Amino acid sequence: MTDGDRSPVTVLGLGPMGRALAGAFLRDGHPTTVWNRTASKADALVAQGAARALTAADAIAASPLVIACVIDYDAVHTIVEPAADALKGRTLVNLTADSPERARRTAAWADDHGIGYLDGAIMSPTETIGGPSAVVLYSGPEDLYREHRPTLASLGGTAAHLGSDPGRAAAYDVALLDLFWTSMSGLVHAFALAGAEGVTAAELAPFARGISDLMPGVIDEFARHIDDGVHPGDASTIASALASMEHIAHVSHARGLDTGVMDAARAAARRAVEAGHGGDSFSRLAETLAGPSAAPVSRG
Amino acid sequence: MTDGDRSPVTVLGLGPMGRALAGAFLRDGHPTTVWNRTASKADALVAQGAARALTAADAIAASPLVIACVIDYDAVHTIVEPAADALKGRTLVNLTADSPERARRTAAWADDHGIGYLDGAIMSPTETIGGPSAVVLYSGPEDLYREHRPTLASLGGTAAHLGSDPGRAAAYDVALLDLFWTSMSGLVHAFALAGAEGVTAAELAPFARGISDLMPGVIDEFARHIDDGVHPGDASTIASALASMEHIAHVSHARGLDTGVMDAARAAARRAVEAGHGGDSFSRLAETLAGPSAAPVSRG
Repeated sequence: MTDGDRSPVTVLGLGPMGRALAGAFLRDGHPTTVWNRTASKADALVAQGAARALTAADAIAASPLVIACVIDYDAVHTIVEPAADALKGRTLVNLTADSPERARRTAAWADDHGIGYLDGAIMSPTETIGGPSAVVLYSGPEDLYREHRPTLASLGGTAAHLGSDPGRAAAYDVALLDLFWTSMSGLVHAFALAGAEGVTAAELAPFARGISDLMPGVIDEFARHIDDGVHPGDASTIASALASMEHIAHVSHARGLDTGVMDAARAAARRAVEAGHGGDSFSRLAETLAGPSAAPVSRG
Repeated sequence: MTDGDRSPVTVLGLGPMGRALAGAFLRDGHPTTVWNRTASKADALVAQGAARALTAADAIAASPLVIACVIDYDAVHTIVEPAADALKGRTLVNLTADSPERARRTAAWADDHGIGYLDGAIMSPTETIGGPSAVVLYSGPEDLYREHRPTLASLGGTAAHLGSDPGRAAAYDVALLDLFWTSMSGLVHAFALAGAEGVTAAELAPFARGISDLMPGVIDEFARHIDDGVHPGDASTIASALASMEHIAHVSHARGLDTGVMDAARAAARRAVEAGHGGDSFSRLAETLAGPSAAPVSRG
């Protein structure tokens, strides 16, 4: 069942990302078994050399390493719970996106059934998979990760093992999505505001790229502040940020634009000012946004 | 009154940015006259060779080019209206930050009084002024800009004339601040969410920089969509973004974090989906965020 030193692998779920994963394993010479509820999704992969399994249990029985990439964790459990006996003694790598808490619950279920479990998060688009710009994060038992790293390396790019807490990959994933989609919301609003003032998107774009160039420096500075719990307002303060945000909201409102995101952002800044942090760096908000129940989980 | 080929310049307002501007003119050899309501703010500049004027009118009379950098446009008018006669025939470059509409009103006032007027926006911090990374935007009559560009060049870095509509510099400014502060709000929330899951800011930072690396490509892609009025959802859709945002809000809420910004962002995405744009690129939101009264102003 092995092809040279390439270990067999099974992929459950053949949506666009699942097909990309299976394709990368195939291209790298791994004997690859695929399964999808709608079997025809496997046709192109079978033409490239994949083995089509008729049931999830058959697919699981074909390989020591089983990758699941489906719509959500409910779908994962619908597939793997009836096949728990087949999975016993094998390793399930769940690359389905969900919450850290769901990842920890699925890890506990796997543990109860003698199934090795790694939770993962894919941080780059389907077209990157197998290439140098793929980013896949893993968490769970380090020995399991080390055992399967040679096979997982076929997915390409940057792979990182983030720790034994199985929720960590999902935690990074959701925090990074938070940054991404909030930034995207700011971007479309900036284009809308510029457009309302007669500035085209192409005119604004080079300067918007200039703003994104500032981010890496701010990220590193804020990270130091946050981990040290010290938020010096030497360069700029929450109070000055709030004044700027009031100005943005005022101009947006005058142009009839939706101001929901900026209203919420300045409400958060205003609460920090009212709590006496007006002279602190904006990084202080990472604390004031966290409510009393937002205590860190213990590290795995 | 000239020092070689260096033209005299006056700076009104000596807060941190005004002092940086005056310092850059001085270092570049311009005879520089300074004025501030609290005269002692000029002491260090006088020690470096600046001339201290006792009144704003005296300061204005000393130079053909007058730079104003004060707290807001009300302060600008408080200073320049009583000195309108002195300003007549000279050029006022207003680097005070305010709204496009205020810039246009101040330009109209200047025009009524025979005063040349350029409106500007400083897009980089005080410490950059005079150096290669300074970014200063100007709008207003192009001949005025060309006339004073040799002197304004002393402020350093990238200078851009954005068009004859005097509101354009402020329009770029507020749109770019919108992008910046919304992104910052996403950043502190991402750190808060990661922290609530036991991930330190230092651990998240390298991956957060990876997210900011995606921005330039997205900016250019969205700019093309927006200017073309075509929003193909080939790579990702508003509907998939909304699903991701619901997930972020759910995990944040479960950890007791403030979800105001993400709630507002997903409400905007949901309205776009409900309007039938769920299959479009997220760039479509630049249109749906703009209300019916957000028609572009005519270009100057």
